[in-house]
Amino acid sequence: MFKTVRGMRDLLPVDAERMRHVEQVSRELSKLYGYEEIITPVLETYDLLAAKTSEEIRERMYTFKDLGGRKVAMRPEFTASVARLVASKLRNEPKPMRLFSAGSLYRYDEPQYGRFREFWQANYELFGSSRPEADAEILTLTNDLLTKLGLKNFRFKVGHTGILKGILDQEGLDEAKQDSVRQLLDKKLWEDALTVAREAGVSDNCLAVLESLFETRSENAFKVLENVKDTVQDYGSAVAAVENLWKILELTRDSGAQLDVIVEAGFARGLEYYTGIIFESYIPGLDIALGGGGRYDKLIQLFGGEPIPAVGVAQGIDRIVLALQKQKHPPKTLKERSVVVISVKDESMAKALELSAMLRSSGLPVEVAVMGRSISRAMTDANRRGVAYAVIVGPKELEEKKVVLKDMNKGEQRTIPISSLTEEILTDSK
Amino acid sequence: MFKTVRGMRDLLPVDAERMRHVEQVSRELSKLYGYEEIITPVLETYDLLAAKTSEEIRERMYTFKDLGGRKVAMRPEFTASVARLVASKLRNEPKPMRLFSAGSLYRYDEPQYGRFREFWQANYELFGSSRPEADAEILTLTNDLLTKLGLKNFRFKVGHTGILKGILDQEGLDEAKQDSVRQLLDKKLWEDALTVAREAGVSDNCLAVLESLFETRSENAFKVLENVKDTVQDYGSAVAAVENLWKILELTRDSGAQLDVIVEAGFARGLEYYTGIIFESYIPGLDIALGGGGRYDKLIQLFGGEPIPAVGVAQGIDRIVLALQKQKHPPKTLKERSVVVISVKDESMAKALELSAMLRSSGLPVEVAVMGRSISRAMTDANRRGVAYAVIVGPKELEEKKVVLKDMNKGEQRTIPISSLTEEILTDSK
Repeated sequence: MFKTVRGMRDLLPVDAERMRHVEQVSRELSKLYGYEEIITPVLETYDLLAAKTSEEIRERMYTFKDLGGRKVAMRPEFTASVARLVASKLRNEPKPMRLFSAGSLYRYDEPQYGRFREFWQANYELFGSSRPEADAEILTLTNDLLTKLGLKNFRFKVGHTGILKGILDQEGLDEAKQDSVRQLLDKKLWEDALTVAREAGVSDNCLAVLESLFETRSENAFKVLENVKDTVQDYGSAVAAVENLWKILELTRDSGAQLDVIVEAGFARGLEYYTGIIFESYIPGLDIALGGGGRYDKLIQLFGGEPIPAVGVAQGIDRIVLALQKQKHPPKTLKERSVVVISVKDESMAKALELSAMLRSSGLPVEVAVMGRSISRAMTDANRRGVAYAVIVGPKELEEKKVVLKDMNKGEQRTIPISSLTEEILTDSK
Repeated sequence: MFKTVRGMRDLLPVDAERMRHVEQVSRELSKLYGYEEIITPVLETYDLLAAKTSEEIRERMYTFKDLGGRKVAMRPEFTASVARLVASKLRNEPKPMRLFSAGSLYRYDEPQYGRFREFWQANYELFGSSRPEADAEILTLTNDLLTKLGLKNFRFKVGHTGILKGILDQEGLDEAKQDSVRQLLDKKLWEDALTVAREAGVSDNCLAVLESLFETRSENAFKVLENVKDTVQDYGSAVAAVENLWKILELTRDSGAQLDVIVEAGFARGLEYYTGIIFESYIPGLDIALGGGGRYDKLIQLFGGEPIPAVGVAQGIDRIVLALQKQKHPPKTLKERSVVVISVKDESMAKALELSAMLRSSGLPVEVAVMGRSISRAMTDANRRGVAYAVIVGPKELEEKKVVLKDMNKGEQRTIPISSLTEEILTDSK
C-alpha cells in the first residue's frame, strides 16, 4: 500500500473545504482592500530563497538540483519571491502597490501540532508607504479576516523593533550582536538576552532599561506605551519608535476597528528584516500564532531593488483552520440544498440528466444516481449522503410532464409538474 | 538581479486573476455536480508517482531525496495521488464517490507554447459506476465548465479504447504490443502503427479493418459509429465498445447538452490505463488540448485497491486561460465599483479608515490613500489606477457629518452626508 511522504498530509473533503474556505475569504478580503493577487512558482532558485532568510529556515528547505543541473528549492515563505518581483518586473508600478499571494510553502520541520511540512499562507503586502495608516491597514485587515471567518477570542501581540534597535544602536552594538539579542528574545530567553547585552559592553543604565522593557507587557496599550516612552527616554530613536507604535494603534482604535491588543515591549520576531511594528495574531491557549507580520522597509533593497518602504502580514491558513476546528466552528456545507436525481428506468435517464442540468443552472447542487440501483436502494443511499431532496424521474410521470419530489428531511413526497420543480425546491429550501 | 528558474512563471495580477477565476469556476462546478474536493500533497513518494505513469512522464519528474533520505518527487499529475487515497483512506466510502482536485503539477518538459514546468489542473473523478450515464456526466461537466467560462468554438474529440483492444485481443497481441500500437496512434503515426501490427502477425482482415478505422473521423457521430460498427463486425468486444460509445453520446445528446463532438475511431491517449471512452476538449487552431479524460476501470486495482470502475477528466487550467486570452475574453475586474478614500489632513485619517471599513462591509472594494500626498496628487493617482469613485474626507465637511464624493468617470463631485455615502455609490454603480 502506498502512503504519503512523512510530514505531508491529505486533506479529505471536510478539511479541504475548510482550507479552501479560509483561502477564498482571504482572497475576497484582498479584493475589498485593493490587494492584487500575484502567483509565483513553488520552485525558485536556491540563491534567491537562501539570500535573506534565517539560517534555521535555510537549513530546512527542500533543496535539490533539477534535470538541468540548476540548484533549486521549494519556497519556505513568500517573502523572497514577492521581493524578487517588486525589485524586477513590478519595479516601475505606481505606489502604493498592494500585493496578495496565497499558496503552499515547504519546510522540513519536525512534524508537530500546527506545524506541517507542506502548509498554506495568505500574504498581504503594502509597498510604498512609510506612514502609520499603512501599518494600521495591515492590522485592521488581519482583524477583519479572522472576524469574517467567525473566529472568537483572538488577540494581537504587538511590538516595535525600533525600540530595542534605538537603544542598542546608541550603545554601539553592531548588527550581529543585536541579532543575537533579538533571536534570544524571540525564544523568550530574556535572561540570556540580557547576558549577551552585558557581555557586549552596554551601560548599566541600558541593562536596567532592557530589564524593565522585557518585563513590560500589558493589555492597556496606551498606558504601557507611556511607561515605555518614559523608560527609554535617554534613547532618541527608541522614543520615536514608541511614538510610531502609539500613532498606529491610535489610528486603528479611532477608526473603530475592535482589536484586542497586547503590547509587549520586548517582543521580537525571528526574521531580522523587520524595521518597525511587528505583530502576531493568536488565540490564548492555542500554542501557535495564526499569523504575523510587520514593517520591513529595507528588504527590497536587499533583493537588488530601489529602497521602498513595506508593511505586510502572512496569515497561516492551516493554523486558522486548526483554530476554527478547536472552536468547533461548523464546516460550511451545501447539503441543505442538495438534490439527488434518480431515473426509474434506463429510458428516462436522458430526461433525468436534462432535469439535473436545469436544477444546476439555478445554483442547486445536484448528484445524478449513476449506479443503476433500484429506487429503494437509491433512496437509501441518498439518505445516507444527507441530501435534502430526491427527484424521481419515471416514464409514467413523464408522460404527464411530471416528476416525484421527495423532501428527505420530512419524508414527504408528491408528484409535481416539471415546470415548477426548480421553484419548489428553491422556495422550500430558503 | 534574481530571476525565476527556467520554465517557471510569475503570474502578474491580470494573469493571476484569470487563473484563479478558472480555478474558482471549476470548484463551483464541482459543487454543483456533487464532487467533493480533496487536497493531496505536491510531494509524494517517487514509488507512488512512478508506479503507473508513462515512461515519458516518469523521466521528466522533479525527483530528489528529502532531508530524511526519502526518494520523493513533485507530482506530475493527480491520478496517482487520488488512486492512493481511493485505495486506502477512502476505501470504505459509499459509492458512487465523486472527487475533485485542483492545484499545481510539475514536469520538466521543454518550455513551449502552452507547456509549462509548473502548471495547473482541475480534476473530476467519478468512482463506482460503470454505466454510460457516468461517462455522459463527465463529458457534460466538461462542456459546462468551458461554456460557463465563456469559451467559444470548442470541440470534443472522442474515441473508445475498447475498439482497438477488442480487435487486437482477438488477434492475440499481448499488452506490450498493443501498447506500442497505441503510443504510435497517440502521436498520429498511423502508418507506423499499422507496421507494428503487421509485424506482430495480425491477419490481413485485421489490417484492412485497422486501416479503415484510422481513417475514420467525422462530426456526424452516430453515422460514423454505425460505419465503425460495421467495419469491426468480426470482433465482438470491439462491437460492444462501439455500442457503449453510442449509448454515452446518445444520452448526452438526449439530455440536451450541446456538445460539438468529433468521433475518431483511431484516437488513442498516451496513458495506458484507459479502458473505455477517451476524449479531449480542444479549440481548432489552438494546438493544445484544453482537457482530457476517459474511463479507467482497472486503475485503482493497480494501486492496491479493490477493483472499482472510474471515469474522469483533467481540465488544463493554464490552457483554458490561454484559450480565453486568444479569444480576447476580457479579464474580470472589480474596478467599476472601486473606491479610493482620501483624507485631507492627518487628523481626519482615522475617520477615513472608519468610512473605508463601512464601505467594504457593503462589498465595495476600497483603497485608502496611504502616501500622505496632497489631494490633487492623490486624485491624479486615483485616475491612473482607474478607480470609479473618490471619497474625500476633510475636517470641514466632517463637522457637518459630510464628505465629498467624486465620480471619477464623469468628473463630477458633490458634498453628501456620510449617512447616505454607501447607498449613493451602490445605487450609482449598478
